[in-house]
Formats: sequence, structure tokens, C-alpha cells
Amino acid sequence: MMRIDYRPIGIFDSGVGGLTVLKEVEKILPYENIIYFGDTARVPYGGKSKSTIIRFTTESVLFLLKKKVKLVVIACNTSSSLALDYLKSIFTVPILGVIDPAVKKAVAVSKKKEKKIGVIGTKSTVASRLYQKKITLLDKAIKVYAKACPLFVPLVEEGLLKGDIVNKIVHLYLKDLKGKIDTLVLGCTHYPLLKDSIGKYLRNVYMVDSASEVAKKVKEILIENNIFNKKKTNFKRFYVTDEPKEFMKIARIFLNNNFEKPKLINV
Amino acid sequence: MMRIDYRPIGIFDSGVGGLTVLKEVEKILPYENIIYFGDTARVPYGGKSKSTIIRFTTESVLFLLKKKVKLVVIACNTSSSLALDYLKSIFTVPILGVIDPAVKKAVAVSKKKEKKIGVIGTKSTVASRLYQKKITLLDKAIKVYAKACPLFVPLVEEGLLKGDIVNKIVHLYLKDLKGKIDTLVLGCTHYPLLKDSIGKYLRNVYMVDSASEVAKKVKEILIENNIFNKKKTNFKRFYVTDEPKEFMKIARIFLNNNFEKPKLINV
Repeated sequence: MMRIDYRPIGIFDSGVGGLTVLKEVEKILPYENIIYFGDTARVPYGGKSKSTIIRFTTESVLFLLKKKVKLVVIACNTSSSLALDYLKSIFTVPILGVIDPAVKKAVAVSKKKEKKIGVIGTKSTVASRLYQKKITLLDKAIKVYAKACPLFVPLVEEGLLKGDIVNKIVHLYLKDLKGKIDTLVLGCTHYPLLKDSIGKYLRNVYMVDSASEVAKKVKEILIENNIFNKKKTNFKRFYVTDEPKEFMKIARIFLNNNFEKPKLINV
Repeated sequence: MMRIDYRPIGIFDSGVGGLTVLKEVEKILPYENIIYFGDTARVPYGGKSKSTIIRFTTESVLFLLKKKVKLVVIACNTSSSLALDYLKSIFTVPILGVIDPAVKKAVAVSKKKEKKIGVIGTKSTVASRLYQKKITLLDKAIKVYAKACPLFVPLVEEGLLKGDIVNKIVHLYLKDLKGKIDTLVLGCTHYPLLKDSIGKYLRNVYMVDSASEVAKKVKEILIENNIFNKKKTNFKRFYVTDEPKEFMKIARIFLNNNFEKPKLINV
């Protein structure tokens, strides 16, 4: 029997970047209620240690659980790389990260080509080597080239998405990958906004943006668990740990449409 | 009578940048014991709100007080701009920020020239308008041009201190100040590392780096309060809220000499 489950989907990110995931989720699941939580007081996570990332992410998921979410998406690549296994081991709610969907897609694309995948992300994501391990696990013939790109997030948050400065920083980070890869995983929620600049530089490289892959996986899990919402009741609510002003400013770079003002909370 | 006060000086910064202040303090006060505290789990503060900056800074100062410091230096410009008045109103220990010493120096320099001062800092520092107000309070004939430079901190933390990318970002932020100012306040602990690149671009502008001004002020306060240490007993201890590895890596950009491994603590 088809149930209707009105409980919201929880989307967590260290800051504003997870909005790329929210956008894709609402595109293919327009009736679902969504609660977005951004840990904006402690953002960014990308250069921090595993223990700190686990602590912050766990506190954030606990907040979403209080809001009675039926599924949690860890939209942050850094948290997905370093905290997801731990979260899954302690919480009963279905929890989904952004790594597996992106890995699956990248491997499928690259298999038809030269089997050379590039992965870019924050320092902590790349240092965790999780992308590298998961790709090789699916196909050990694939060569993986990983590179941390710490300046990409501040660039995007400054609204610098193309132009001379962006091109030079793209060159700085990607010159070693250029000509060596057929597929590139954009392993950070901010990077899809640099897709044009990265694409122009690398040429003929398929870019995997985890957001749309994750959204498909969310739909699968909802159907599998029979916790789908087929009635139009949708709300989107935003919660942040720092005052909403700066979040709203940067969120406008990510979303084109209007959205409800986030509520300030403490975790 | 001359007392000898062995209690350490506490230096607080949101991260690693306060090491520029530590360096200057130990240069002119070589016998003083120093405790450095960096809130590396929650860094950076530069784009966050006043209430969050006050909360994080207060928690950090409370940690230093537990270590029985005789004086607290708020080495972080963002915290000095937004939290110093509050801290002074609630704590009895002498607390010193980095704004006043820099303002005093800048005004003294600019008075002999065209009375046009530039101030650069984080988003929150510039938005607080504290530098601007304090300069005008000392001499209302001085014109102040302020500009937030959010990409400077990530550049320094990437070890990018000169070259093409740095020059282009310097141009991006400082083109409106070029030719208009005789003095520039480097209103963030990271910026002195970009002094050469900024100096080459602006030409003939006197740059005020608060670190050395703050150190002089620390010495004054110690003498005034008779809490000087004239015996060679010095230790330097470092505490951070995230695991020390990343701190140590970036600290090497700031300090040339070796230093004791920081201890990880929670506030």
C-alpha cells in the first residue's frame, strides 16, 4: 500500500553550498518538505580535522533529528568523506552522503573512455582519500588524480565565477590534471558554480556534479523505504548557526529564486 | 618597588594570524611567558556576525583566564572590532585589542602627509566601521577609505604571497584606493605577509602593521600596572581548538623558527 509520509527531508551542509543539492532535490521531488541546516557559525569545515568534522556534523544531524526528518542528506563533501560512516553507525535514520552517488556516476562515464578520473575537493576531503579508494574499489583499472583546491570556495563566495583571476587559479590547481583525465568529480558543493571556467580550461572532460546524482539517490531511498510524499504540502525551512544576513547574501549566488529567511539556532 | 610577575601574557586569535603579534611581543619583551590560543575549529571569524564573534571570543578569553594570564591581547582584528568593548565591560584583566594602536600610528603618520588613510580588513571588520570612526575621532580632517578583502586570508593560508594571482587580487581590491591614500592600515593579522605585493602596487604608501604597535602597547601596560617580568623564565605555550596538524603547517608561513606543538582543547 502506498503511504504518504509528510515528514521533511533534512539537508545538512557546513554552510551555503548544500543549496546546490536542495535545488536538485526539489526539482525531482517537488512535493517533499525540506529542512536545510547550515552550520554557518563554524563554516568552513574543509581544512579541519576528522575529529572536529565528526563532532560538528553529529551536532548538526542531532538538530535535524529533533525536527523529525525522515532522511538526512549530508550535502557537504568534507562531512561525507570524514563523518558519514560514523553517523551511519550511530543513527537509525537513513543517511546519505554525496560521495557514493558521484563515484558511481564518474566510474560509469570513465569506463567508456580512458578510465582516468580527476577528483577535486577541500584539503580534508582530498586528504581522506575516500573518493580515490571508492573509485578503485569499483574498478581498479581506473587511475585517479586528486587535487585539493582551497581557493575555490572563497572565490565562489566572493561571487568570482569567471574571468582572469578565476582562470589563473583554475590553472594553478588543474594544470597537473589537464590532458590526463577524461572525467572530473567536482567534490565540493561550491565547485559546480565554477563549471564553465573549469570546463573551458580542461576541455572535453565530463564533469560530475554530485548534486543531481544525490537527488536521484534520495528519490530511490524514499521509494525503497516507502516514505514518499505524493501530496502537495511542500515547505522549505532554513536554519543556520550564525545570523542569517551573510547566508542570505551568499545564497543568492547559489539560488536564483527567493527563499524563506533562515532561523538562527544554536547546536 | 619593582615586582616580578611571572604570569603569562595571553594572546588570542581566531586562528594562526595572531602569531604576527606574538613575534613582535617576544621581540621587545623577551622574558615574558606567553600563552597563545587559536580558535582553529571555528576559524575564520571574518565573515561572521557580531553576536557570534562575541560568543566565540568570550569563550576563548575565558580559557586564557583559566591559565591565569596577567593581560590579554586580542590579536584578531575582527574580534577587536566587534567584541573588545564587551570583553572590557565584563572582565577585570587588562585587555588590549589591535585597533587603537594601529589607529594612533596611522593618524600620526598621515597627519604629516595628505591626511588620507586606507583601511583594509575582513568583511566584518570593515562593516563594523570601527577603524573609520576611531580615525575620524582623532582627526576629523582625515579622509578614510575602507575596503574588505576576503580573499587575502585564504591566499596567505595557501602560501601565495606574491606573483601573478596575488597581484591581480591586490588590484581587484585596491584599485579604488590607489592614488587616493598616503597611509594604509593592514587591518588583519594575515595582511603583513602580503606587504611586499601591496606595497609594490600602491607605491609610496606607508603601511601600518598593527603587530609592532600592539607589542609596544603591551609593554606600556605591563610597566604601568607593574606586572613586568624581568627574570628570564620564558615559555611559550600554544593551545588550539582543532587538531594541531593544520595549525602547524600554516604557522610555518608566519614563523620561521620552531615552536612547541600546540595542545588540543575544547572551549
